[in-house]
Amino acid sequence: MRATVMFGAGDVRIENVPDARLIEPTDALVAVSRAAICGSDLWPYKTMEHSETGHRMGHEFIGVVEAVGADVRTVKVSDLVVAPFLYSDGTCVFCREGLHTSCLHGGRYGWDGVDGGQGEAVRVPQADGTLVVLPVGTDDALMPSLLTLSDVMGTGHHAAIAANVGPGKTVAVVGDGAVGLCGVIAARRPGAVQIIILGRHSDRIALAREFGATDVVSERGEEAVVRVRELTDGFGVHSVLECVGLEQSMHTALSIARPGGAVGRVGVPQDESMPASQLAFYNNVTVSGGPAPVRAYIEEFLPDVLEGRIEPGCVFDRVVRLDGVPDGYRAMNEREAIKVLIEF
Amino acid sequence: MRATVMFGAGDVRIENVPDARLIEPTDALVAVSRAAICGSDLWPYKTMEHSETGHRMGHEFIGVVEAVGADVRTVKVSDLVVAPFLYSDGTCVFCREGLHTSCLHGGRYGWDGVDGGQGEAVRVPQADGTLVVLPVGTDDALMPSLLTLSDVMGTGHHAAIAANVGPGKTVAVVGDGAVGLCGVIAARRPGAVQIIILGRHSDRIALAREFGATDVVSERGEEAVVRVRELTDGFGVHSVLECVGLEQSMHTALSIARPGGAVGRVGVPQDESMPASQLAFYNNVTVSGGPAPVRAYIEEFLPDVLEGRIEPGCVFDRVVRLDGVPDGYRAMNEREAIKVLIEF
Repeated sequence: MRATVMFGAGDVRIENVPDARLIEPTDALVAVSRAAICGSDLWPYKTMEHSETGHRMGHEFIGVVEAVGADVRTVKVSDLVVAPFLYSDGTCVFCREGLHTSCLHGGRYGWDGVDGGQGEAVRVPQADGTLVVLPVGTDDALMPSLLTLSDVMGTGHHAAIAANVGPGKTVAVVGDGAVGLCGVIAARRPGAVQIIILGRHSDRIALAREFGATDVVSERGEEAVVRVRELTDGFGVHSVLECVGLEQSMHTALSIARPGGAVGRVGVPQDESMPASQLAFYNNVTVSGGPAPVRAYIEEFLPDVLEGRIEPGCVFDRVVRLDGVPDGYRAMNEREAIKVLIEF
Repeated sequence: MRATVMFGAGDVRIENVPDARLIEPTDALVAVSRAAICGSDLWPYKTMEHSETGHRMGHEFIGVVEAVGADVRTVKVSDLVVAPFLYSDGTCVFCREGLHTSCLHGGRYGWDGVDGGQGEAVRVPQADGTLVVLPVGTDDALMPSLLTLSDVMGTGHHAAIAANVGPGKTVAVVGDGAVGLCGVIAARRPGAVQIIILGRHSDRIALAREFGATDVVSERGEEAVVRVRELTDGFGVHSVLECVGLEQSMHTALSIARPGGAVGRVGVPQDESMPASQLAFYNNVTVSGGPAPVRAYIEEFLPDVLEGRIEPGCVFDRVVRLDGVPDGYRAMNEREAIKVLIEF
């Protein structure tokens, strides 16, 4: 079969790889219908050292079940399923607490002999705990929005939960990528009254406004902090969604949080230490978040997507076939595209 | 009047200073009955540069109201009152949210012309918002425990709240000072099932066990992490109370938190950046806390103290008169004493 393999920074190729197949009795074999390129795929795209064997890419996909292992009970052949960006057993102590990202038997696509999602098929381990059946056909117009449930919509929601977003709260979203944009949806959904997007790309800002952003701050660093304070009676916001992961973005996030507020961070931190620890301390600002247990959120968001109340699929502004994936990486890396959808 | 003045590291003296007196109509003049030396007073005791004028010390005290300004309504002459370690108006947006430490008109004893608590009398600004009347006499046996409501008991409680302590939770307390010991009380109170104290001073450990600690870890660093994991099925604890503020203690705290757990920090961070940010992120560990709004907690804890359900006053293991305060600093700094009470 054909699949996306990264061989080093800027070097993404579509290669022939061994066909995906069942190995464990808890596996499902899924033929991929839609997949996506993730903002987090751009970190290795910028920095990966050259590898002779390369690395299988992709962790967001929807597909049709082609076969299931003997122990699989909740999905069957021909089901259309969405996969969260990590697999998980659904039964361990952490899954039962809703923290599927810390599953004792979970793992990542593209690692440990598991296929990546940006290919024709995937062996999905722990199929019962991982996959969620979708009540639509593969050509449904809702496919892009359903695909966001595999990662970016759930990740934006996780940031909102970690930041204690709620009715009447003021919110800032740091980062105008797909996760930040979904964070705007996630902040509006429970009734935030003010949603400030920090970003400077006009197409993304326009989409943020469609999703519910009430204010835009295009400044950076200290100027952005001053601007957010101006917009919030001088105090800062109750909730900050940190959707970047850089030291500067985290510093900004902590600086615009109101005393007693919270920063929900989902941008993968690129530094070992967190800045502005004393600032956060003296203001009693909570820092929460991490990899989003999106599996825990899929069922909650399905009705909203199916009934058209939210349209996170709008973050996809480019569609490619598998052959177009390398150019999709380039386009996202150069900010030509917000997020790239792959059709099979 | 006489009061405690620090002139530099290791240089604490009892000096004659101008008598405390009313200035603002919202002030109360309080004759101090009991005061305390705080672990946080030891930071300047270790590091303060020499000052000709010196700095007035102390922020934990109980006293008798001697006079009130024209606008004061809730306390009157002869009332015995406890003062939280910061003054606050009780009416601003942050006080109404229970975050008195961010009061828009609040401040610190010993700064901005306000007396320190380790002296014969104190002008207390914002008396209505700050002081809480105590229904006992000045010689009551409960005075030591009531005095802890000015800081360490409320601070330990704040750590427990920030760390999401609750019924059935597993808890670790990093630091066996007075705040950590009060943290043990605060963790036991809502029903934590396992309370691990990390410390190595036998007198403090003994007190921690009296307060409800179930396990003791005397190792440090990586060895302490291994030991806590052994005590918690390999996962770490739900809630960590960080009551030190050093980089190593914070690193330990983040390393012993279970995935999805929380670190409540009340030890004043001595470093600008926080360690182990990525570790916290990947485990979805929340970091919360800061200066404790103890004013918000006094009424809640008063019945527990008055009815003898908790005895946080046991953290005082030495009593001095005002003349003995310099030696009290020395004793606490050399860990001869856990916490020193000053009787007037």
